[in-house]
Amino acid sequence: MDKDTIVQKFGGSSVANPERIKAVAERVIGYKNHKCDLVVVVSALGDTTDELIELSAQITDDPPKREMDMLMATGEQISCALLAMAIKSKGHDAISLTGAQVGIKTNRDHTRARIQKIETRRIRKALTKNQIVIVAGFQGVTHDDEITTLGRGGSDLTAVALSKALGACVCEIYTDVEGIYTTDPRIVKEARKIRQITFDEMLEMTSLGAQVMQSRSIEVARKYNIPLHVRSSFCEEDGTMIVKETDKMEEVVVRGVACNKQEAKITICAVPDKPGVAARIFTEISKAGVNVDTIVQNVSHTRLTDISFTVPKNSLTQALATTQTIAKKIGAGEVLHDKNIARVSIVGTGMRSHHGIAAKMFQALAENKINIEMITTSEISISCIIDQQSADMAVRTLHKTFKLEQV
Amino acid sequence: MDKDTIVQKFGGSSVANPERIKAVAERVIGYKNHKCDLVVVVSALGDTTDELIELSAQITDDPPKREMDMLMATGEQISCALLAMAIKSKGHDAISLTGAQVGIKTNRDHTRARIQKIETRRIRKALTKNQIVIVAGFQGVTHDDEITTLGRGGSDLTAVALSKALGACVCEIYTDVEGIYTTDPRIVKEARKIRQITFDEMLEMTSLGAQVMQSRSIEVARKYNIPLHVRSSFCEEDGTMIVKETDKMEEVVVRGVACNKQEAKITICAVPDKPGVAARIFTEISKAGVNVDTIVQNVSHTRLTDISFTVPKNSLTQALATTQTIAKKIGAGEVLHDKNIARVSIVGTGMRSHHGIAAKMFQALAENKINIEMITTSEISISCIIDQQSADMAVRTLHKTFKLEQV
Repeated sequence: MDKDTIVQKFGGSSVANPERIKAVAERVIGYKNHKCDLVVVVSALGDTTDELIELSAQITDDPPKREMDMLMATGEQISCALLAMAIKSKGHDAISLTGAQVGIKTNRDHTRARIQKIETRRIRKALTKNQIVIVAGFQGVTHDDEITTLGRGGSDLTAVALSKALGACVCEIYTDVEGIYTTDPRIVKEARKIRQITFDEMLEMTSLGAQVMQSRSIEVARKYNIPLHVRSSFCEEDGTMIVKETDKMEEVVVRGVACNKQEAKITICAVPDKPGVAARIFTEISKAGVNVDTIVQNVSHTRLTDISFTVPKNSLTQALATTQTIAKKIGAGEVLHDKNIARVSIVGTGMRSHHGIAAKMFQALAENKINIEMITTSEISISCIIDQQSADMAVRTLHKTFKLEQV
Repeated sequence: MDKDTIVQKFGGSSVANPERIKAVAERVIGYKNHKCDLVVVVSALGDTTDELIELSAQITDDPPKREMDMLMATGEQISCALLAMAIKSKGHDAISLTGAQVGIKTNRDHTRARIQKIETRRIRKALTKNQIVIVAGFQGVTHDDEITTLGRGGSDLTAVALSKALGACVCEIYTDVEGIYTTDPRIVKEARKIRQITFDEMLEMTSLGAQVMQSRSIEVARKYNIPLHVRSSFCEEDGTMIVKETDKMEEVVVRGVACNKQEAKITICAVPDKPGVAARIFTEISKAGVNVDTIVQNVSHTRLTDISFTVPKNSLTQALATTQTIAKKIGAGEVLHDKNIARVSIVGTGMRSHHGIAAKMFQALAENKINIEMITTSEISISCIIDQQSADMAVRTLHKTFKLEQV
């Protein structure tokens, strides 16, 4: 029978320096001794990526994307060579491969290329020789040998895509946290590590503010049903399994509480309440390259209405300028903004089959005199926009209300 | 008619930091405007190579050569990407290519691979688009996509081999000196930059101590008759042309004076003077991996003779151990050594057709009371091993005797 294949990915902090690389080598060899085939994806050493970006910034403000990929891809090439050396020096055979050598074929969209195909011939050949295969994450190659990179979180994507291509039984994501928590442990000391979470919940948590993995990799894992194991590279304990369906699917209603303080709110007052107005506003804002999140339009009593929406704080200046221009054009009133907001959300697939969760959430906030400014819901989450000063209290309140310290 | 193609190679000190890379970009664009096709080979940024070696040394004392190549090749990939960015930011089109992307095919001898073939399709395609092509020096790729490096001086070799493959009219080697000098200007202030020198003379100068280029690249240039222009990247002036035959071939007898203080002398006393003894001694030393240079065996009056030879200082310990063992085996006497020697040489193809040069050299040294310990000659050079303390005086004396300040 074929051996199981495991894909492991180690992030930049896990391979930040030679000492840590040697520790990763020990760990990888320990796994290899469990009689599975092992493919290890590495990010660039700690600060390498920033150093390379700084080098290019000293050359030009606007580096061509193709050359940027040529430059950035060296970071992972360095770390995979060093890890292969470390493993071999500890007595186990290993081989490092660049994205091009593996045959991670992408389109030509430099700096954020999409994987089109992964060849497995070379990796399988190495695995047959009982070598541990170390793959440079974050990079690929076009059909005409151009080096590409996959954009933010690209090494996670390399790991997940390789897991699919090789039929791996699990994809382990090693990071500097011990797993996914019911909420941020810095805010709620009772926060617990979640043993299992569904892809849907994880995607929702991520889009609502959790920052452990990029959505793109989770989406690919969900699409091909590849179990992800998010765990710490600094301890042996199990982390969080991200899976299609969890064991206690029916029992748990709310899996976690997310909080995002990186948004700002814009309100256009006295908008003429005519068909097509909202479309016109958000088409213009979208053209300006700003991502809009929650949108709320109040019911109109007169022919005028207020429209509020949130944008990332770092897009506020541009969003405001665009909004002010369009407000004038459509004959609306004042444009207000508020940077002092937070989004507090509860997430759980159990919500699909449970009622009264929203009411319970609003009630808990009200009891703590927290005013809700905007509300949005998805099938498996409810978010409230509140005053930023109340955010931490709201998270603690909701964590307790839904008994997350007991799960 | 086809445009001329020029290959330029910039060493590590020429691209040591972003400022210098931008200066190189200016210079390259200036040349490009002369209506030639331009291929530029770059070494790694100043200290990058040392930093990468240091990283690997922190992982293991004995890094596998394949992984070492994987690691080291990133240095030139970084510098070629940065130079391409710099050129494009100044308004001229450029493209960087790794050794693998160019198609510099080598054998599998990692860390000192030999070039077997260079494909030119991709470079020619870029040149047709009027792009300046920037090639990562020092690296190649095997037929099965393994990354290799070419060993010391590898970027020079990349440049010379590309010149051959592309039929370049000249290969310019940019370095931190202004060219080849009649002797070391730090020893003789009257030393003059040589306008033209033959491949043979340059090879002889290099093997006798001059350190501007590695012999291997000069040999390839000689083989294919590719004119080399060694010049400074920090000034516009012409440097030294290395060519098959110089304009004033007949006039100049001595082209330069070389001096090497990196050798040590070993003497085996009272060697039984039997056939095969010398062969036995030097076979053993060769097996120990030590390069022997000058060998002198004195005429034997008795049945015993003394054999002296020189070795690089950094091989002395090993050479001595081997020599002592073999001396015992063959029943020879004491083994002596002297680190305090220097080799002073005069080089010139004109010697082929001139007589009395050796006598003139010995006479000049004698007049300065410099004792000659060993002598060796080639068709175009004469070397004397002397006491190291007298070396600088010997160089000055010979430089003056052969009127090199006037050429």
